[in-house]
Amino acid sequence: MRAEAIFTGTELLLGQIINTNAALLSQELAKAGISIFRQVVVGDNLERIKEAIQEAGKRADLIITCGGLGPTEDDLTREALAEALELPLEENPSAKEHIIRFFTLRGRPMPPQNLKQALFPRGARLLDNPLGTAPGIFLEHNNKLYACLPGPPSEFGTMLKEKLLPLLQQYGAGKEIIFFRVLKISGLGESAVEEKIRDLLQGMNPTIGILAKPGEIHLRITARARDTRTALELIRPLEEKISERLKSYIFGTDGDTLEGVVGNLLTLKGLTLAVAESCTGGLLAHRLTNIPGSSAYFHQGIVAYDNKVKVKILGVSAEILASKGAVSEEVALAMARGVRDLAGTDIGIGITGIAGPGGGTPAKPVGLVYLAIDYHGNTQVKRELFQGPREEIKWRATQSALDMLWRHLKDNE
Amino acid sequence: MRAEAIFTGTELLLGQIINTNAALLSQELAKAGISIFRQVVVGDNLERIKEAIQEAGKRADLIITCGGLGPTEDDLTREALAEALELPLEENPSAKEHIIRFFTLRGRPMPPQNLKQALFPRGARLLDNPLGTAPGIFLEHNNKLYACLPGPPSEFGTMLKEKLLPLLQQYGAGKEIIFFRVLKISGLGESAVEEKIRDLLQGMNPTIGILAKPGEIHLRITARARDTRTALELIRPLEEKISERLKSYIFGTDGDTLEGVVGNLLTLKGLTLAVAESCTGGLLAHRLTNIPGSSAYFHQGIVAYDNKVKVKILGVSAEILASKGAVSEEVALAMARGVRDLAGTDIGIGITGIAGPGGGTPAKPVGLVYLAIDYHGNTQVKRELFQGPREEIKWRATQSALDMLWRHLKDNE
Repeated sequence: MRAEAIFTGTELLLGQIINTNAALLSQELAKAGISIFRQVVVGDNLERIKEAIQEAGKRADLIITCGGLGPTEDDLTREALAEALELPLEENPSAKEHIIRFFTLRGRPMPPQNLKQALFPRGARLLDNPLGTAPGIFLEHNNKLYACLPGPPSEFGTMLKEKLLPLLQQYGAGKEIIFFRVLKISGLGESAVEEKIRDLLQGMNPTIGILAKPGEIHLRITARARDTRTALELIRPLEEKISERLKSYIFGTDGDTLEGVVGNLLTLKGLTLAVAESCTGGLLAHRLTNIPGSSAYFHQGIVAYDNKVKVKILGVSAEILASKGAVSEEVALAMARGVRDLAGTDIGIGITGIAGPGGGTPAKPVGLVYLAIDYHGNTQVKRELFQGPREEIKWRATQSALDMLWRHLKDNE
Repeated sequence: MRAEAIFTGTELLLGQIINTNAALLSQELAKAGISIFRQVVVGDNLERIKEAIQEAGKRADLIITCGGLGPTEDDLTREALAEALELPLEENPSAKEHIIRFFTLRGRPMPPQNLKQALFPRGARLLDNPLGTAPGIFLEHNNKLYACLPGPPSEFGTMLKEKLLPLLQQYGAGKEIIFFRVLKISGLGESAVEEKIRDLLQGMNPTIGILAKPGEIHLRITARARDTRTALELIRPLEEKISERLKSYIFGTDGDTLEGVVGNLLTLKGLTLAVAESCTGGLLAHRLTNIPGSSAYFHQGIVAYDNKVKVKILGVSAEILASKGAVSEEVALAMARGVRDLAGTDIGIGITGIAGPGGGTPAKPVGLVYLAIDYHGNTQVKRELFQGPREEIKWRATQSALDMLWRHLKDNE
């Protein structure tokens, strides 16, 4: 099955937003064994969307559009599809009901132009949208498949995975697949990783790709095969070689995150956690609580932005604050100990540092961060010096804290 | 001048990387007054790149390709351009010299396939590449302009800004620019926004575009003019009309964020803030502390994931927790009051809710969130029901909290 994708939105042609949907679509189609040969971006213009749909229909078996299904006047995809295929638009009663219910549930009046979203080209099927008012469109026409999905990334991703792909399987998608597995590495830099596996980089099937992300490295092993099992058989020997060489750095695979892996280990061991953050300002708590079920092990976070909070709530000694400064090994340790005592948890983490852009000195520059862990009274502290803008320093500091926590949990297995 | 862009690379069609070059190109062309009508992505395939170049040449005045200029076998853009225009490839002596020098300077042997990068279609000009071995290509042919730039983002960006755009000025680019201004709206839905400004949407210069983001709406006013000042003169009357109609919803423009606008108001008024979060798990504190200088007004955050924390640290009454439940108006209010008392700040915010995916009941479903503010003892509480995955519910809840805070700060001006 050969696919082409059309992304609509003047905001894309003006560079106001980055087209993340394109990458997501490509990934998901690869997993389903559908090759995508072309992606096109056009603005919110009826003629140009229509032309793009007609051109794609000449070359591909499956034409997917993204965007332009909303209620406003520059949402033109349904009209363009109907005109491109010379089909009339008709109101779909169940779509109409869905839209009215969406507003009723929220207790808001429905602006009448929302009903435009209930119009479908004759013969089209409706794809439910659990997250918004605009349903998707699916249509078989002259032996080609047309699918229209909404543009907001959460709606696009959910409908692609939950509605469109299951439907495409019925049309024979998935005969040969492109499958990749990602090994996720923490605590080692990109070139150090490459050096350890350089001799393995020349293979053709599977191939290896290295991607550096802030605070972690992703190794992608990609294979083509007739099914996932065969692909995994190709991937496994290479994965084992890599795992052996990078054992103490690989924290997970594929969709794993450091916060998720740490959460699993805490759950397995029945341990509880509390964190005291200064320069990361709540980001560590936010990442930990992104994991469903984290309330079982994450009990409390304190964002101690004001030094008075460090003294009053966390019991950091005012003398130490005065003599060593808020950004110091001693204060990080006292914060870890203080929050653990306060929350009565097994583990406490303390982070203090300078996220910038202001507040740095020659002795304590922007990016200096101390991280401490108190695990049943056993403590460890480390010093880091990060570079980059404020948000990247915050992110890297939480990566470092999660890496420290991961090593503690794993080594005490 | 009408442009189209062609991005080559199988990695784009596999979704292994996100096409950030597309957004950068669009932004830079807009600044130079060049309208881009279409972007196309194709894989590393000679026929398909050639076909894309020929099609674009039928519609546009300027055809820009990105990628496929390197030394490896899947770098095919120069061959595709030559075949598309039926021109022979010839070795360019100064390109050859540049490539040899690049390796000599680094003291490395030159793999011979690098000399492929010295081949140019007859009549083409070389665009110097200060960051890599692959020079760019510029060619005038049958009254159309063709430009080929390398794909690595740093090389692409540098050569676009420093080599290609100055050259395009000689061909009349930059006589007119495209300039846009974004108005950012909180507290009103997409179709409600459109309803209030529908009569203004028909203009041709400036035009208005509506973009829905989670918890906020962006209105983009785009003008074409000979310079930024003239563009702003075109934009201003429309902006004033829109501002009048949507006054109480527009929180900022262009790069403004709700957390930044709130931070400015807190600073201006010399007010201080503390937050107590349950379901948002630190995200509100994280967003507030992303703003440089936030330590001046943001004193403390408590992530009260465990109910015991709500009682012990925030002073929420155990009876209320038992009778009303943790997710209730009363608990949100008690959290706001409690964290304000604890931190001794002017304002306290409390958030409690169910982020999901588990934990919902028919009476208290996933997505139910109560948000409360205590401003010098004056309190307000609101109930929201959000949809979507866990992270989106967390995000929308912080949007709602920031909107509530923004309204308090602005109305008390």
